[in-house]
Amino acid sequence: MSEATATDLYEVTMALSYLREEMTRPATFSLFVRALPPDRGFLVAAGLESVLDFLSGYRVGADDVETFVSVLGRPVRELEPLLGLTFTGDVRAVPEGRVVLAGEPLLEVTAPLPQAQLVETCVLNLVNHQTTVASKCARCVLAADGHPLVDFSLRRTHGPQAGHRAARLGALVGFAGTSDVAAAHALGIPAVGTMAHSFIEAFGSEEEAFRAFARAHPGPVTFLVDTYDTEEGVTTAARVLRSLGLGPGCAVRLDSGDLGALAVRARALLDAAGLPEVRITASGSLDEFAVDRLVRSGAPIDTYAVGTRVGTSADAPYLDSAYKLVEYDGRPVMKLSSAKVTAPGRKQVHRRPGHADLIALADEPPPAGAEPLLETVMRDGRRTAPPPTLEAARQRFRADLDALPSEARRIRSPVPPVPLLSGPLTVLAARERHRIERDVLAG
Amino acid sequence: MSEATATDLYEVTMALSYLREEMTRPATFSLFVRALPPDRGFLVAAGLESVLDFLSGYRVGADDVETFVSVLGRPVRELEPLLGLTFTGDVRAVPEGRVVLAGEPLLEVTAPLPQAQLVETCVLNLVNHQTTVASKCARCVLAADGHPLVDFSLRRTHGPQAGHRAARLGALVGFAGTSDVAAAHALGIPAVGTMAHSFIEAFGSEEEAFRAFARAHPGPVTFLVDTYDTEEGVTTAARVLRSLGLGPGCAVRLDSGDLGALAVRARALLDAAGLPEVRITASGSLDEFAVDRLVRSGAPIDTYAVGTRVGTSADAPYLDSAYKLVEYDGRPVMKLSSAKVTAPGRKQVHRRPGHADLIALADEPPPAGAEPLLETVMRDGRRTAPPPTLEAARQRFRADLDALPSEARRIRSPVPPVPLLSGPLTVLAARERHRIERDVLAG
Repeated sequence: MSEATATDLYEVTMALSYLREEMTRPATFSLFVRALPPDRGFLVAAGLESVLDFLSGYRVGADDVETFVSVLGRPVRELEPLLGLTFTGDVRAVPEGRVVLAGEPLLEVTAPLPQAQLVETCVLNLVNHQTTVASKCARCVLAADGHPLVDFSLRRTHGPQAGHRAARLGALVGFAGTSDVAAAHALGIPAVGTMAHSFIEAFGSEEEAFRAFARAHPGPVTFLVDTYDTEEGVTTAARVLRSLGLGPGCAVRLDSGDLGALAVRARALLDAAGLPEVRITASGSLDEFAVDRLVRSGAPIDTYAVGTRVGTSADAPYLDSAYKLVEYDGRPVMKLSSAKVTAPGRKQVHRRPGHADLIALADEPPPAGAEPLLETVMRDGRRTAPPPTLEAARQRFRADLDALPSEARRIRSPVPPVPLLSGPLTVLAARERHRIERDVLAG
Repeated sequence: MSEATATDLYEVTMALSYLREEMTRPATFSLFVRALPPDRGFLVAAGLESVLDFLSGYRVGADDVETFVSVLGRPVRELEPLLGLTFTGDVRAVPEGRVVLAGEPLLEVTAPLPQAQLVETCVLNLVNHQTTVASKCARCVLAADGHPLVDFSLRRTHGPQAGHRAARLGALVGFAGTSDVAAAHALGIPAVGTMAHSFIEAFGSEEEAFRAFARAHPGPVTFLVDTYDTEEGVTTAARVLRSLGLGPGCAVRLDSGDLGALAVRARALLDAAGLPEVRITASGSLDEFAVDRLVRSGAPIDTYAVGTRVGTSADAPYLDSAYKLVEYDGRPVMKLSSAKVTAPGRKQVHRRPGHADLIALADEPPPAGAEPLLETVMRDGRRTAPPPTLEAARQRFRADLDALPSEARRIRSPVPPVPLLSGPLTVLAARERHRIERDVLAG
């Protein structure tokens, strides 16, 4: 089975209907987030590279057809029209790392209707998940205020794959490293971490454990100091580091208790031991709220390790995202059902320094000095350029973040900027609403 | 790269230390949840089958060693001791589908220390994620109170893999189907779903869309009726169904608005049209809280489709789980750091009808009439039996659920039962705490 079966069944039943009705003209679907979750002042676009990989490799093979036959309980000949189908459409999208807001398309897919429908589930899944986690990581970067952040989330993400994604998304917004070996290797980012409490417990004492670790790993080490009593642990770590002539590049890790108070005590003990260059890493249930509190309190913590709550975006683990048909065969399309109105037509988002973003129809002339957010990234089923580097995404994020109003950057009760709708888009939406009310509802 | 690199770096650095110190005697790690999330009266054990697949296939290959070399920046010879390492240990575990509580081991791994350590990250990830989602699905089953439930979560889970897991975990606690084609096929469970709003919009009218769908899909159909106006949609659906002679097995789906009130109206319209056998499916941001409200209100909804909030366990997307060393080379081990005390020793959980569960040391004689929760499922790295069927897990869940006190089964403010600790376990924990305070802290 290929990824073509990683789909909601209804994409398949709809595609079969479209093929039977010969409705294979180009359709545009727009992927956007209706409203931001609480405590989000902005989102960070992510998942596009996974989407392009998925679309490039999309092909309904013979085994996929067999799977469809089996779950639908229909004769093979009814499913055969799908055999060999690939994605031959275009994608316009906001590059990864850019800041996006409610109502702004993250991507638009234009392809023969059955294709654009068949890829919906995976496209939505990949963008929704990765934009959710990237946006959470971005808030940690704001909270850390220049302190290095590292990702420790792999053990509690929703499967190992989600962990690898989280490591990448942290790196995309500027994290300094990850504990995830596979992701670090694949992405060329630093892998971090040294020892667990179980390591200390497996030895007769903390000192034995620290010395054994240093024997196996010459060079800078991080000692975990809170297994029994944190102050004792720091004192022992300092003694072992000094006796081994270690210092620069080394650290102690605090993983429980009042991290701010313990960091003050640890800093004092390390300084008193003549180890001012030994750093302090904090971990344990940290998220942007906890990091913000610690940073504002002036705690002498050098590096923050965030994990579970960030890798799962625990306070808001999904977005109110939608993949909506906005144009079919050149005709704008919209949906009216209660509280879920979709604006019709292919769109572009114009970003203007010092102004609100402007959501416009794709063919409107851009306002002066504006930068378009959506770029053509796939044409006729092929990427228009090789995948950009993580560093490029990081720079885009940094620039967009710096341009955000301060109230959108707040950790607590941020206020997201509200994009404007262009005149032509507003007129088209009103006209379409009127047409539906007249033709469809009255008919 | 194999799954051996889907690990936190520190598992690798610790394993290397253990090998260097020749600390390869058997160690037991216990995986348990410290405290239940809010609004959980119990958990449902899940993830074990993934864990056993992972452990059976665990092998550090040459490419994995290369990856370790690369991320650690160490010479190859330092990593070579890991080459060819497989998992040769034993696993005792609570079978999937059983109800478990805070503090009760879900599984215990006993293996040479480096092996038991190296597998930590993946084992914890798989059990944490799947137990989280299975427990959320179980609450939906309680809320639905006998109504069929189906899973629509694939589009917003944390990656497609997490979606396939969610489909399985729903089925494990009794869901009637899933929209996920790949999962339905792999598990032999019903695939469900028919059309999206975009399908309706792609046609000139709802009626055209319904008729086209029925042409392509002879037999029972489900029409989505809320694209423009729900009552109009139901009326149109009824007209099309009657004109095609359809009825039994068919349904209308409500996906927005006041689902309870709309269901009452839809039921009346369908009945008035002579279609009492056409069912009503509700979807759209449903979770156990919403389903509970609708069921208690007596809404004439036949099937509930739950999605995003359930597949991500949105209100509690992770558990406070831990994988802790409890015994090394026959010596019980415990951790004292603040608020995170670990009880020492290999354990067993005894379930007794009408009594609280008893957490005891593994070698204690069982109380009369008690059933042990942990079973030996892997010996010397091999499964002791083939994977049980989903149906077996479903029956275990049903039996355990029925035996739970009613306050644990509540949807709002449930009260989880509290397991007791056996006398010998309490004595051992006190003795170990005393020993650590004397030897380790004073030393």
